[in-house]
This record gives sequence, C-alpha cells and structure tokens, in this order.
Amino acid sequence: MTYRFEHETLGQRVVFAPGAAATALAAEVERLGAARVMVLASAAEARLAREVTDGLPVVHVHDEVVMHVPVPVAERARAAAAEHDVDLLVSVGGGSTTGLAKAVALTSGLPVVAVPTTYAGSEATNVWGLTEGATKTTGVDARVLPRSVVYDATLMLSLPVDLSVASGLNALAHCVDSMWAPRTDPIDAALAAEGIRALDAGLPRIVDDPGDPAGREEALYGAYLAAVAFASAGSGLHHKICHVLGGRYDLPHAATHAVVLPYVLALNAPAAPDADARIARAFGTATGLEGLEALRARLDAPRALRDHGFDEATIPDAVAAILPSVPASNPATVTPDVLERLLRAAWEGATPR
Amino acid sequence: MTYRFEHETLGQRVVFAPGAAATALAAEVERLGAARVMVLASAAEARLAREVTDGLPVVHVHDEVVMHVPVPVAERARAAAAEHDVDLLVSVGGGSTTGLAKAVALTSGLPVVAVPTTYAGSEATNVWGLTEGATKTTGVDARVLPRSVVYDATLMLSLPVDLSVASGLNALAHCVDSMWAPRTDPIDAALAAEGIRALDAGLPRIVDDPGDPAGREEALYGAYLAAVAFASAGSGLHHKICHVLGGRYDLPHAATHAVVLPYVLALNAPAAPDADARIARAFGTATGLEGLEALRARLDAPRALRDHGFDEATIPDAVAAILPSVPASNPATVTPDVLERLLRAAWEGATPR
Repeated sequence: MTYRFEHETLGQRVVFAPGAAATALAAEVERLGAARVMVLASAAEARLAREVTDGLPVVHVHDEVVMHVPVPVAERARAAAAEHDVDLLVSVGGGSTTGLAKAVALTSGLPVVAVPTTYAGSEATNVWGLTEGATKTTGVDARVLPRSVVYDATLMLSLPVDLSVASGLNALAHCVDSMWAPRTDPIDAALAAEGIRALDAGLPRIVDDPGDPAGREEALYGAYLAAVAFASAGSGLHHKICHVLGGRYDLPHAATHAVVLPYVLALNAPAAPDADARIARAFGTATGLEGLEALRARLDAPRALRDHGFDEATIPDAVAAILPSVPASNPATVTPDVLERLLRAAWEGATPR
Repeated sequence: MTYRFEHETLGQRVVFAPGAAATALAAEVERLGAARVMVLASAAEARLAREVTDGLPVVHVHDEVVMHVPVPVAERARAAAAEHDVDLLVSVGGGSTTGLAKAVALTSGLPVVAVPTTYAGSEATNVWGLTEGATKTTGVDARVLPRSVVYDATLMLSLPVDLSVASGLNALAHCVDSMWAPRTDPIDAALAAEGIRALDAGLPRIVDDPGDPAGREEALYGAYLAAVAFASAGSGLHHKICHVLGGRYDLPHAATHAVVLPYVLALNAPAAPDADARIARAFGTATGLEGLEALRARLDAPRALRDHGFDEATIPDAVAAILPSVPASNPATVTPDVLERLLRAAWEGATPR
C-alpha cells in the first residue's frame, strides 16, 4: 500500500429511504428551495414517477427517454426545461433517465435530484454521455452530478430476480476491478471493499426471498458504493475485456461480466496480494477467489461464455482487440498468451485458477 | 445493519504527496486559477511555510495564529485578506492555522487550500470555530471546507513520537466512536474501519522507526479518514466522556482519550455486534477489544486516569456531569451505575471487560 495519490471526493447527499421515496424526495426538493420542478421519467415508469413526485411543485413531466441519450432527445429535454422555466430536474428511472437529466444539467446548470429504479449507478458519478448517430461521446462535468440521490429499494421490487442478480454482479465487478484500475487509491479500495461486503450479503437474500426488501436494500447500498469507487478508479482489465466482448461480438453485458470476473481475479490476485486480501476480508474468506466463487455458486451465475454466444474461433481476434487497451496499472503482466488462456478458460467455463 | 440513513459526502480534493508538498500545492493553486495568495502560518512554522509555498503568487503572509481562533484575531486576518485583495487562502499548520483560514473563508467565501502539519483533521471538515472571551462558538458552513488538502507526511517528521502516538490514538478514538455516534451510517462506519486499519498499521511503525516516513504516511491517511467519519457521524459516548473529563477537571486530552477508549468499547461491543465485528476485521483480530488492547500495548499507551490527575473522589461528580450528554444512540444502556463502574475502572487502569 502506497500513500501517494490524488482523490477527488464528489460532494453529494445520498438518502437511503426504503419505502419512503416520496417523503425523502420532498425533503430534498424543499432543501434545494425549488419551486418549478421538471420530472424526467420514461412512459413505462410514469405511474411510479407520479407516486414518487406527488405533492411536488411539478411544472412539466418529460417522458421521452431513450437509451444512450441521442443528441436530439437531449435537445428536446433542454428546450422543455427552458420553456417551462424550471429550477430543478428530478429524474425517476434507470441509467437512461438519469443520463437525460444529466444532459440537461450539462448545458443549463440546473440541479438534479435522482431517484434511481435500477442498480445502474450513474446517479453517483459526474460522467455524462450523449450519442450522435453511432458515436457516443462521454465527458466529466461537475454540473451533471446529482445534488441528492434518493434510494428506495422498494422501487426495485418489480425488477426480476435474474436482472437484479445480473445487475448486482455487474456492480460487484466494478468493486473488484476498482482494486487495480488506473486511478485507484486506498479510498477507492476501501469503498469498493465495503461494496463487496454489502453485495455479497444482499444478493443471495434477493434470490432466497425476492419479495423481502432487505436484500435489495443491501445490494442497492453496495451498488451505490460500486459506482462511487468505479467512477474514481476508472476501468481496469476486467472492464476493458468486457467492453471489447460486448461491443465487438454483441455478447450480453451482464453474463459477460459474471463469467469473466473470476478469471481476471485469478490472474491478478497473486500479483496484487494487498488487493486480494481486501477482497477476501470483504467476503470473509481466505482468498478473494474463494469468496467470489462461493457467491457465484449461491447465485447460480453464468459460468461459460460459450453458453452466451461467444465463438471459440474468435478468441485470437478478441486477444488482438483487447491487448491495446490493457491498463498499464494492471498488477499481472498481460501477454497475448495470458489473455488467450484467460479467454479460452472463460469460453469453456474452466475452474478459474 | 439498517439501510435507512442520510449521508452528506463533502466534495474535496485530497492529495497525498509524501516529500512533495510544494509541487502538489503549486498544482492545486494553479488548478484553482489563483493569482493572489494569502499564506496563513504561525511564526513558528514560518520557514516550513516559506519552503512549501515557494514559487506561488503570494501577496501576503499572515502569521498571527492563536488557539481556538479568538474573534479579534479572525477579524485582523479578514482585514488583511481584503486589504491585499487575495483570491486564495493557503494554510500551512495545525488545527489553529486551518481554523483561522476557515474563519476568513466563512465571511469572505474565499477558497482554502490546507497543508496540515499535524493529525488534527480540521482540514477535512466543514466545521468552523471562533472564541469570544471564554465562549466558543462553532458552526457548519460549506464555505469553510478547504477545496483541496495537501498531505505530506514528511512535514510531520519533526512531531515527537509521543505526540504522534497521542494524536494517532485520538484519531483512533474518532474511528471507534464513529461506529455508534448519533448520525452514524454504514458509509461512516466503512471509512472509520479503514481508518482503524491504517492507524493500527502506521502507529507502531512510527514508534519502531520515528525517522521512517512510511508509518507516518499510513497514520496520516488514517487520521484523515477519522476526521471524515467523525465529522459526519458526530460525537459518541467516548467523546462525551472525554469532553467532560477534559473540560471539568483539566485532564490531558490525549491521555484521557487513550485510557477511556477501551472501556467504552468493552461496554458497547456486546450491544453492537456489527460494529464490533467491523472493528475486529479492521484490526484483524477476533474482537475489537483484542485488537485495541494489542495496539495499546505496542504503543505503551497510558492505562489509568489516576496517573494523569484524575481524583477518585470526583467520580460521582463526573457521572452526574456526563449522564445528560450520553447520546440516545448509544448501543449499551448507560445508567449512573454503569458510568461509575466505567470511570472507576478507567481511574485504576483495570482490565477493560
């Protein structure tokens, strides 16, 4: 552990209010002194948004929410905010809805209060994204960080168990990969370890009793920490691999993350004993891999990329595509051979070692 | 563990730059675009401040630093800032120096960059304090939170070992007490646990080799986290007890904290198993008390209040004075009997149980 680092803590209020999103949201809106609220929520979540924002001084509800925030969609939301002279944006929804509110905040400077309905995590970061045709542009701006986030795990009770687990394992990957990502520091590692602890406790409870909000509360808290740590630490080897597999071969996001993570951990742990010790402590196991494998077994997580559309013949192509993006900070040396062995093991679902 | 809480994360950059305070400070000043810097540093730390601020656009050095920031002292610093038309305050020093910069920021809104030379922790909080005669006023204001903090452990190499240990144990008490303080939440507890881990690793290294900066780096990092957690969680039972003992009987601050902490932990641990498990995990021991006692033994920490001027006959008076301030959030029930037994044990240095 070295203590030579820069860490930027993002200032934000978070309110965990299980079963009480409306009350908590009203308090945040009042705290910000807002009088003209624009609500952003997809048409599919209109009823939920109405319930959560009941009693607020809402002057406009904007329901055109599109994945990856196309520029014309952002422009229309910005125009609506100007037209209705709003002084606060309230987003109720998943990553696309939060992203739309951020796009409006980016040009208007309007404050955002986010009420997430998935474990996406965008609400805890100052990263924005916009797409123009096939091109996605992302950036970092202090204005897009929501001032407050209201987390209410009961809003996620309708999220199916398999999606909850996939989303939770994605958050877990954020935590594990944060241990050796390019900008990581001891604070990121500590928050990521707390995220692992919470996800490891919460996710099995969701599987055991999908109707009990307690597991979802714990997983939601873990997903929040995952987002905070990941936003600060950046993408490590795991996310670079998954980014290529998802983008180049259209593999499903969640399953890819679930399968690849233990192989990256098995590769890096021997070269990063401090990180592995932290992960192990968070799981309460002797090694990080032991904890991760036990959790994956309990969750019946996907185990092989070949079950999810990855073709063995494309491994050499994948190796070539991934290699240039391997972070210099990665603890283990990553040669073409190392990467090929890792992908082959992940393809067939071999025991990670 | 419940997940119903509000947490306000304070936005701040922290830079840990061992041996490189001047370079790191210059980068922070440039990042803020400052052109007219006022340096605040006591006369005793004038040379250190000169070295650290060498090359900055300094228009005024203010060296009237007084403990607890008397109002007239603050007024003179504010007048100097106005007279010299400064656009940034840079404090180099301990809690009193940081406190003076905060007093100027409170009325002027000027940004502060803090370069701490002790483990005081004020630089990580939005709390200000001023004294008028014998009356101390404190408050919370976003404007007084330093924008950036530059931590350079080599600036603390001149701090004597006994003072380093006392200051470090004080930080450790912040961490442990944060586990059950009135506004605590899981995030505070996670940061406090990381602080315990770092202080437990760093403090013995300071004792073993006072000239090696590594132990001081780790302890400084732990003290920073202690301040963040404590500022968010508030004062728990331990700090209420020490506040009365220090204020009413003039007992030495550091020794009082060092002696009292294990008795509070022994009292609360059975009623707060989650908190105790976190503390134990951070120490790497079976129970929190086991870890704390092992650390105290290694540091040869003070063990009995009677060695530090506490009179057995005043115990009933102390019990009466402490009782009204016992936080309702304290996990163990605190009756007059419980408090009397605790104080008697701490007075004689009995084994905490």
